This record gives sequence, C-alpha cells and structure tokens, in this order.
Amino acid sequence: MHILWNDQIVEREEVKIDIEDRGYQYGDGLYEVVRVYNGQLFMLEDHLNRLWTGAEKIRMTMPFSKTELSENLKKLVEIEAIKEGKLYFQVTRGIDSPRNHALPDPQKVKGVLTANITACERPVGKMEAGITVAVVPDTRWLHCDIKSLSLLGNVLSLDEARQQGFDDAVLVRDDKVTEASAANFWAVKDGTVYTHPDGNLILSGITKKKIIELANELTIPVKEEAIFEEELFTADECFVSGSVTEIVPVVKINDHVVGTGKPGKITKQLINAYIASVDAECGFSE
Amino acid sequence: MHILWNDQIVEREEVKIDIEDRGYQYGDGLYEVVRVYNGQLFMLEDHLNRLWTGAEKIRMTMPFSKTELSENLKKLVEIEAIKEGKLYFQVTRGIDSPRNHALPDPQKVKGVLTANITACERPVGKMEAGITVAVVPDTRWLHCDIKSLSLLGNVLSLDEARQQGFDDAVLVRDDKVTEASAANFWAVKDGTVYTHPDGNLILSGITKKKIIELANELTIPVKEEAIFEEELFTADECFVSGSVTEIVPVVKINDHVVGTGKPGKITKQLINAYIASVDAECGFSE
Repeated sequence: MHILWNDQIVEREEVKIDIEDRGYQYGDGLYEVVRVYNGQLFMLEDHLNRLWTGAEKIRMTMPFSKTELSENLKKLVEIEAIKEGKLYFQVTRGIDSPRNHALPDPQKVKGVLTANITACERPVGKMEAGITVAVVPDTRWLHCDIKSLSLLGNVLSLDEARQQGFDDAVLVRDDKVTEASAANFWAVKDGTVYTHPDGNLILSGITKKKIIELANELTIPVKEEAIFEEELFTADECFVSGSVTEIVPVVKINDHVVGTGKPGKITKQLINAYIASVDAECGFSE
Repeated sequence: MHILWNDQIVEREEVKIDIEDRGYQYGDGLYEVVRVYNGQLFMLEDHLNRLWTGAEKIRMTMPFSKTELSENLKKLVEIEAIKEGKLYFQVTRGIDSPRNHALPDPQKVKGVLTANITACERPVGKMEAGITVAVVPDTRWLHCDIKSLSLLGNVLSLDEARQQGFDDAVLVRDDKVTEASAANFWAVKDGTVYTHPDGNLILSGITKKKIIELANELTIPVKEEAIFEEELFTADECFVSGSVTEIVPVVKINDHVVGTGKPGKITKQLINAYIASVDAECGFSE
C-alpha cells in the first residue's frame, strides 16, 4: 500500500509518525474521507473546501495549497489503481517538541499530511435491508462542525449503540436529534424530509448537501429543522447519509420499527437519484 | 532521548508510530503527566489509578499491568537520569487496520504505550507573580473526567485566551466555572476555598486531591462547589493547580484584578504546604 506522506508518495512501511505529532498527543488535526468511483474522486472540491474551512476554525495553517493536495491525492489514486474505494486523508498541526498545549508558531511547525486509499463498495446490503439505531445522548463537544481528529466522543457513542446490539447511534442533545455517530440523520414525515440545520452541533455533510440538491430537483420538500426525539417514533421513514454510507435507510430505532420496517419510498427515490448523480459525475464503473 | 515504547526502552529515533494507530486517527487513548522530584515519581499510584479508571470508562484494555508499567516508567527515569522533570505517558487503543470507527477486538489489537521524560522546574516565577486568565466558554465534551487524547477543545480554549493576551483560560459552562484549560481552578472567599466537584465536567485532579488533604490539615475550609462566573469577580484569591503547575495564583481575570493583585495569603499557605509535602515524599533535591 502506498501512502501520501506530506507531498511524497511512499510505501506504507516508510512512513514514520512522530510521538510528538500533535495529532497523536492532542487529536489536533482534521480529516476527510472521499469516495472514489470509477477512479474519480467524487465531490473532491467540496471536501477540500470543508477541510480549509475547518483549518481556519482551528487556526491551523495548511501545509499545502488545495491544488497541490488535490494533484497528489489524484496521483495516489492512480498509483494504487483502485477504481472503487475510499480515500482517507488527515492533516495534523505537526510535530512540536517538547509537548506544549499552546499552539506552535506555524512558521516553525508545519502540518503533517497522511492519505491512503482502500477498496470499498457501495453498501448495497444495508441499502436494501436498512440498519437499526439506538438513541444515545450526544455528549460531544460544541464544535461538531469541525471534522477533527478528536473523535473519542463519536467512537464511544457508536460503541454504546453497538453494545446494545444496534448498528449505529442516533445522537440526541436537549431532546433534539443531531446526527448519527459519523453520518447525518434524516426523517421523513408526511412527504417532507427533515434534517438538522448546519451549525456547531453537526457536521455539514457533503452528502447532505448533495441530497438537498437532489430532493429539490425531485421536488421533494426538505426542511433543515431539528427533529425532536419523540418525533423519531412517528416518522414515516428515516435514513442516514455520508460519503461512504451514501444513503442507508434506518428501519428500527430502539425497539420501535420505523414505518413498515422496510426502506421507505422517498428514501429509495433519493438513493436512486444519488446513484444516478454519481454515475453522471464519475461515469459507470465496471 | 529514550522513549518507553510499549515495554521496551529505546532511542527516540527508533520509535515508529503507525498511521492507523487509533491515537493518531481518533484521539482514542489516555495520558498522564507525573512530576518527578529528586528522581522520584510523585503520586504515581494516583496517576496509574486514574489511568486505569479512564480505560474502564472508554472500554479500553490496558496492554500492561500497573506493576509492569510502573517498573518500566521508573527504569526510564533512571536511564534518562533526570532528577527534576515531567514524565509524560500515553496509551492508545492500538493499531487497527483498515481504519474503522467501531472498537477493535482487544484480543487482536493491543494498546500502544509511549512515555518520555523531560527536565522541568517548579514554576517559581509564576508562583510569585501570578498569572492572568480570560473567561472562555467551556465547549468541551461531557466526559472531561476522562483524561483523553481528544484534546482539541482544551487546546483551542487555551489559544482563545492567549490570543486575547492572557496566560490561560478559565472555562465557564452554564454560568459555572469548571476548570482552566488544563488545570483545576480554585477561588477563595471569606477564608473558604471553593473548587468544582468531581464529576463528568472536570478532570479529577491528583493535585486537587492533595490540596484538599493539605487544606484539611491546615484547617482551611474547602467546599467542592461550583463557583458562578460572577463570583469570580468578588473572590479574595484565585489559583490553578496541576501536577506540573503545582499551585499558581491567578491575579487577573479579564480586566478585573483579583484581590490585591498579588498572590493571596491562603494561596501562599497552600503553596508552602504543597512544597513541604513534595519534600517529605521525595526528599530534598539539589
């Protein structure tokens, strides 16, 4: 496996992360996951824009330009020759020694980038059968709009749901649904699709943005309004979305069966539209 | 510099952290900082106990026993021959490939430990002059009792205060003072010392515990009760505490001068008692 390590593409074994990389000691960095279809990076520009916006929010200087990073990521995809995959990349604030909470001078400490691509397929089984979720309190920090490496809150939320036998968590803060443990959450009621508005409580999903565009094209009404926890149990349909997840129906929330217990009509419409938009942008893969 | 890397003491250059170490991708791990006085690890057992409690909370299996870790840390201190220093150690959930939010099977993925010691002195200047703090909203997650590597919230809080020209942040959540960006916070009013009670909103400080013991011995009344933000501005004295910080007076909060603007009487009593307890446990250093 090749890794993009800063601006070099090297064998995985050559990469050496320092013990005082702030990513390792502080979760001080950002990441993105881009889906690769037919060798093309889907919505790469949106991912790069979000990364740069996040860097501003955490006052981190990016070590490369968007163009440099974009070109190097594309080279990595080519070298690994993976047509269907997910490209993961992260940037930390760099190696600062001795360890110190205060942010280092960006002139002296340069961010560390690592990227790798792994094969990945559309989760067709989950799209057809749906997944189950457990309601879990959202105890994460108040900057969930930042796609940071400080992910322990997300990871523990997911585990809490899994320990109870569910596939994922639906997070609730102050009685309102925010998102899933690593995906946006949606509910459909009387033909309207609801999801939490952007802001500091959720990640502004790239797939979320695309779904809203597609719903508009399909003239399905969308409201970016928080869903109350109790409304989860009267929704006609629910689903989660993310770059790798795409759109996956939620068929059970705690002990409650959503709708008919099968993927709903609007969810399926959106799944089909999403797949069509991928095909239109990236071309059909073999 | 030597590093304790899992159970081996090696040269720093030999250590190679993997890109898929969950510490690097998820901030998924815990850490401790132990002060070394006269070659002795001060209150090591308390630090180890907190680490083990944290591991239970995040459902992480520790890769070594307390005895093994304790012996290896002592060996590292001996080899580095640092009499006055701070010993940093962290344990991550280990290397899990391919990257996956779900917690790996602890039978298959073993935690990664790294530890290093650096020279460090008592912050005498700060103890005499005091520090300034800015009130900053506490936007961290709701498990601040866990000394985790997902520290971006702490780091950004500190930076927010520093950008405004202050030494540290005093964090406020729901009108109540929780702690400083990486230290417990205390206020003295009419002879009584106040600090936030343990629980999910603050780190249960080892130094905090020691200060409460010392105050009891000195018959200084201590109440573990949250201080309201407005009470900060009528406090007679304020200070912060931590293993490396020990006890440092706070002489200014935003534009407000605390008490006389000099370290207060009770703060000084506690500083002296703390130094005496260090000397009693570790012996006088040169």
